[in-house]
Amino acid sequence: MKILYVDVGVSPQWLQPFKKMIELVKRPDVEVEVVGMMRGPPDAEYHYYEHLLMDELLEIVRKAEKERYDSVVIGCFYDPGLREAREIARIPIVGPAEACMHIASTLGHRFSIITGRRKFVPKMEDNTSIYGLEKKLASIRTVDFSVKEMEESREKLKEALLNEAKRAVEEDGAEVIVLGCTAESGFSKELMEKLKVPVIDATLVAWKYAEMMADLHRKLGITHSKIGGYESPPREAGWLE
Amino acid sequence: MKILYVDVGVSPQWLQPFKKMIELVKRPDVEVEVVGMMRGPPDAEYHYYEHLLMDELLEIVRKAEKERYDSVVIGCFYDPGLREAREIARIPIVGPAEACMHIASTLGHRFSIITGRRKFVPKMEDNTSIYGLEKKLASIRTVDFSVKEMEESREKLKEALLNEAKRAVEEDGAEVIVLGCTAESGFSKELMEKLKVPVIDATLVAWKYAEMMADLHRKLGITHSKIGGYESPPREAGWLE
Amino acid sequence: MKILYVDVGVSPQWLQPFKKMIELVKRPDVEVEVVGMMRGPPDAEYHYYEHLLMDELLEIVRKAEKERYDSVVIGCFYDPGLREAREIARIPIVGPAEACMHIASTLGHRFSIITGRRKFVPKMEDNTSIYGLEKKLASIRTVDFSVKEMEESREKLKEALLNEAKRAVEEDGAEVIVLGCTAESGFSKELMEKLKVPVIDATLVAWKYAEMMADLHRKLGITHSKIGGYESPPREAGWLE
Amino acid sequence: MKILYVDVGVSPQWLQPFKKMIELVKRPDVEVEVVGMMRGPPDAEYHYYEHLLMDELLEIVRKAEKERYDSVVIGCFYDPGLREAREIARIPIVGPAEACMHIASTLGHRFSIITGRRKFVPKMEDNTSIYGLEKKLASIRTVDFSVKEMEESREKLKEALLNEAKRAVEEDGAEVIVLGCTAESGFSKELMEKLKVPVIDATLVAWKYAEMMADLHRKLGITHSKIGGYESPPREAGWLE
Amino acid sequence: MKILYVDVGVSPQWLQPFKKMIELVKRPDVEVEVVGMMRGPPDAEYHYYEHLLMDELLEIVRKAEKERYDSVVIGCFYDPGLREAREIARIPIVGPAEACMHIASTLGHRFSIITGRRKFVPKMEDNTSIYGLEKKLASIRTVDFSVKEMEESREKLKEALLNEAKRAVEEDGAEVIVLGCTAESGFSKELMEKLKVPVIDATLVAWKYAEMMADLHRKLGITHSKIGGYESPPREAGWLE
Amino acid sequence: MKILYVDVGVSPQWLQPFKKMIELVKRPDVEVEVVGMMRGPPDAEYHYYEHLLMDELLEIVRKAEKERYDSVVIGCFYDPGLREAREIARIPIVGPAEACMHIASTLGHRFSIITGRRKFVPKMEDNTSIYGLEKKLASIRTVDFSVKEMEESREKLKEALLNEAKRAVEEDGAEVIVLGCTAESGFSKELMEKLKVPVIDATLVAWKYAEMMADLHRKLGITHSKIGGYESPPREAGWLE
Repeated sequence: MKILYVDVGVSPQWLQPFKKMIELVKRPDVEVEVVGMMRGPPDAEYHYYEHLLMDELLEIVRKAEKERYDSVVIGCFYDPGLREAREIARIPIVGPAEACMHIASTLGHRFSIITGRRKFVPKMEDNTSIYGLEKKLASIRTVDFSVKEMEESREKLKEALLNEAKRAVEEDGAEVIVLGCTAESGFSKELMEKLKVPVIDATLVAWKYAEMMADLHRKLGITHSKIGGYESPPREAGWLE
Repeated sequence: MKILYVDVGVSPQWLQPFKKMIELVKRPDVEVEVVGMMRGPPDAEYHYYEHLLMDELLEIVRKAEKERYDSVVIGCFYDPGLREAREIARIPIVGPAEACMHIASTLGHRFSIITGRRKFVPKMEDNTSIYGLEKKLASIRTVDFSVKEMEESREKLKEALLNEAKRAVEEDGAEVIVLGCTAESGFSKELMEKLKVPVIDATLVAWKYAEMMADLHRKLGITHSKIGGYESPPREAGWLE
Repeated sequence: MKILYVDVGVSPQWLQPFKKMIELVKRPDVEVEVVGMMRGPPDAEYHYYEHLLMDELLEIVRKAEKERYDSVVIGCFYDPGLREAREIARIPIVGPAEACMHIASTLGHRFSIITGRRKFVPKMEDNTSIYGLEKKLASIRTVDFSVKEMEESREKLKEALLNEAKRAVEEDGAEVIVLGCTAESGFSKELMEKLKVPVIDATLVAWKYAEMMADLHRKLGITHSKIGGYESPPREAGWLE
Repeated sequence: MKILYVDVGVSPQWLQPFKKMIELVKRPDVEVEVVGMMRGPPDAEYHYYEHLLMDELLEIVRKAEKERYDSVVIGCFYDPGLREAREIARIPIVGPAEACMHIASTLGHRFSIITGRRKFVPKMEDNTSIYGLEKKLASIRTVDFSVKEMEESREKLKEALLNEAKRAVEEDGAEVIVLGCTAESGFSKELMEKLKVPVIDATLVAWKYAEMMADLHRKLGITHSKIGGYESPPREAGWLE
Repeated sequence: MKILYVDVGVSPQWLQPFKKMIELVKRPDVEVEVVGMMRGPPDAEYHYYEHLLMDELLEIVRKAEKERYDSVVIGCFYDPGLREAREIARIPIVGPAEACMHIASTLGHRFSIITGRRKFVPKMEDNTSIYGLEKKLASIRTVDFSVKEMEESREKLKEALLNEAKRAVEEDGAEVIVLGCTAESGFSKELMEKLKVPVIDATLVAWKYAEMMADLHRKLGITHSKIGGYESPPREAGWLE
Repeated sequence: MKILYVDVGVSPQWLQPFKKMIELVKRPDVEVEVVGMMRGPPDAEYHYYEHLLMDELLEIVRKAEKERYDSVVIGCFYDPGLREAREIARIPIVGPAEACMHIASTLGHRFSIITGRRKFVPKMEDNTSIYGLEKKLASIRTVDFSVKEMEESREKLKEALLNEAKRAVEEDGAEVIVLGCTAESGFSKELMEKLKVPVIDATLVAWKYAEMMADLHRKLGITHSKIGGYESPPREAGWLE
């Protein structure tokens, strides 16, 4: 099987690091590909940026399906374009927020998301609501770092994540922590040791979910439903050439 | 005051009819402008089509603000780009689904939405959930017409709307009907006479909401909040020139 | 059009100030009338007082309809008698809590209500629940002022409102503030400047909602549904002479 | 102990029958008193009628407390005046809807309410929501009888109750039936035999709840809280002489 | 009538004290029996311990029914085996958490539970959810005492309960306090005097609920439904000899 | 890796068939073991039977952990003992209902569960609620087969599953079907072809989830949280020797 991880944003310096991290956790029988974007802002911090990046993202998804990838992971915790990608594709498309929140729900009573800025919270709460998981969400906490700041100050970021995660565990009743930004990847092991609760790295855990989904697709034919919300536009209309 | 209604989709034949309908209900002191799109599919029936139309939609919103429009109505019951438009604009942006569902909630115990096809339901339910109004929603029913079919078979559409609205009132407990597609505009009066319950025309009622919002903005300075989800991208980043 | 604002309680000294405030925001084509009560306590701080004032309130509503008012605003954030008034009237009846919470919901991710005392909170939460808006409510905070104290210590009240609103924005995630007592009217502009988020004045915003509803009624025939909860008592029974 | 059952409405012919029914189920150590009203409509079918009856209802509650009754049952399934009565009294006040829905919740997975007309449903659903029990409610079904019709056609009413209750059990998943109108009292035994599920008579079961509450008050000092929503108006204000 | 209180756990020293407390609040016409267990851990602090105690608990329930007890109270705030006990019995089975939360819901706007340790919270929240009462729950707070510590340090426990209950009332909006562990029995009177809000002793209030249920069963034939979740295994299968 | 599937109930004839089905979908690098029970009823149709089987189930879980299994799947759609097993184990324990409902939630807007009898529904709904997924559940439908009947009439069962699944898709809005009983295993492929929506086989999909969890545990150290609800009993207490 081969699975594609799409880093959402124009930040080529992150492709190798993501690939390396994924290589360490992937199944032996899976091939990893990581691609980024060529047009638009470096990240999807604003919803307008998500829009600017969406066109290329959906192109990549469609190309991946043609090239017989078994699954695509959308590398951004807003899960941008998840609905649109599933509409135009038949292979399993994985959004890190959706996948990680569902897995976190099976690991403890409630989970908290630690993300970047207040700006990010409303869409993430709306997604939690759409995914049906409001009841399992203890809180969304922020470290008050922009994506750029997260990338530039890794040590400070780690410390801030630890602090907020601690407060989530002690004050909000979280039993599980979800690192709610792919720019927070790479810290879960260390945080887990200090916090003594499961910590979900959005990149790596979404990847493992994609492996499972790809396998379910191959072995059992299971992929997202095409009867309602993900019904594809008719080919003859010509918009999906 | 002047307000802009944006018909989402490339369907120039609808601009005059929409304008005429709006002229009949508008406040005397408000100027009506109706614009459509030049690029993309005729309607937003698929989420991928929403994506294809979004770029022009957001351009129109930004231009409207520069041209000192007092408010913009996004003419599609999916409320496409509502989050993004509010992020990049300061004038009140009105989504018909959001506006009509809130108004319907103040008119009776529960409302039902009558829309086109099963395809449309999941995103509309998700929006109802995001808008916080699940409890006021009696049901979403469909007439099983595509947008194109709605435009071509007006009499059959009216009959189908009447049938489903009747069932919503009698079987689902709806006290109010919302016509959940701008292509269903123009029938509310007739339906209301037959059904004896309030029937909300998404185009016209969203327009009236925009008038109120524009007025609230002018008189009291109230528009959508800029502190969280609708925070604008920083000008200096250059993506919003 | 002419609209009636009913100040709930026997406090004649407030009628002129309310009228003046409303005159500043009203539509040019709308006539303002403000009336108060002659029997009962000065305000509706207790539910028993609401009961004592209800009789005159419902009389005023019925008289207003006969005198061809286009809408009535019930001037109290408990929305006392909203259900009963809609039952016996056909013109749109506006409750400030209902109207302001729905409008606030379209302005940001969540809103907080700042009201007088702990005493007020349960009924306001129950109303939020009945109106279907629990999910949009960030918090209800209190300044710990009785209605009388609010009326007597305007400067202290303003300061207290500012403090609680700040905490709502910073600690509870509110993106919008609703001033949840008509005795808190008159401060929204100043608070908005300091808080940098929309602040809803219950009197003025309910008024604007009533203007829109009256217009919707005139132009489109829309008013509250008569099929279920607001069904009127039969005239022949004689209780509604 | 002595407990007062207040039949809400002017229908003196019902006082003896209610008293007889209650005598059969009461605790041996409890004294039964049943009173009705002297002013207003025969029942509380409309919310305006509830208002017309409220004044006398609250007088009766206050008199009962002075006369050292241990508890008062408000004999109407709308629970009219429950909030106001608890505000002005310290002895336990029991609303049949609240009491019966809580007890029904402990008897099975979900309950259905069978009530009179569509008119009644919105307020009952709102009450279910305020009481926090939406999740336990399978459905509210109606027999399409006004209160007057219920009183005049007892056999037809019984048959209609049986039919709707059957459908609630078979189609809506109800495991328990609540007869949601005090005018439906007297049928529970027969219905229970036919339906093979618990059937709650609102009058009798509310009475038993009042006995328990009165006993909890006497033995443990427990009655409704006075710290928030039920805080009493200050005596010195003079409105509660 | 005779009712059986089953202390869940092997802690014979508690049987007399429980019996004495219950004797003081019981109805004059009810006979009290209190039994404990012979096999297993002293309390049900862990879910594995609940499992270890369940076998004997269910035996006791079945024996009680055969010996014509009118009701059984399961003496543990986890309500262990409530579902299973109702499945195999026809007499009313009372769980203290279920009974006390429903009663607390009728006493004020929201209640808080004060229990032992963080460990206890998830199952209690899950039960609140299953019982349908999430909306009435202000908070669950813990004193950070194990059951053993509760039993050994009564004075410290009382102080800790008072502190957490105060915070629940002042910070969480609780109007009613539920002592969420049978090992917290005996303090409600004192706490109520200090807190000025109703305080529910789980043992005593569950007992009173059982008295009411037993009476409802005798007088009206009402007990838990046998049509769905509590359907009994068929006798002929031989597992319930 | 090696994973253990525990068939809950004494039905040795099912062990080979389950093993064969699992062998066909398992990862190449995973070893399958399937065990059943020696004491108690053939299945967990009644909650009392769940209790009777629990002791051996928890023994098996503990033994599996000692024998270095990487994960255990509890083979029953009630997820019996999930809480208890996680409390006493550190390796990932998978409940089919929990795993399948979460996966189904990522495949479409809503899912329906098709299970055996009305009896099964309440606990399954309660579990849905505890797992936080009420909003994603379109409906639970039953084929009205006991577990025994399911095992004996495979063809009739398949037809009944198809019928109810069709109705779930057409009438309840389900986009995904979950076969909610392990005795319904083996039909998903055929049903999927006929229904054109994803159909989840509880045995096989839970197995794949267990593979993912075991892998997450090995690679990233992630397993269920030990800080709250799943905290283990202290070894020194001696109940978990």
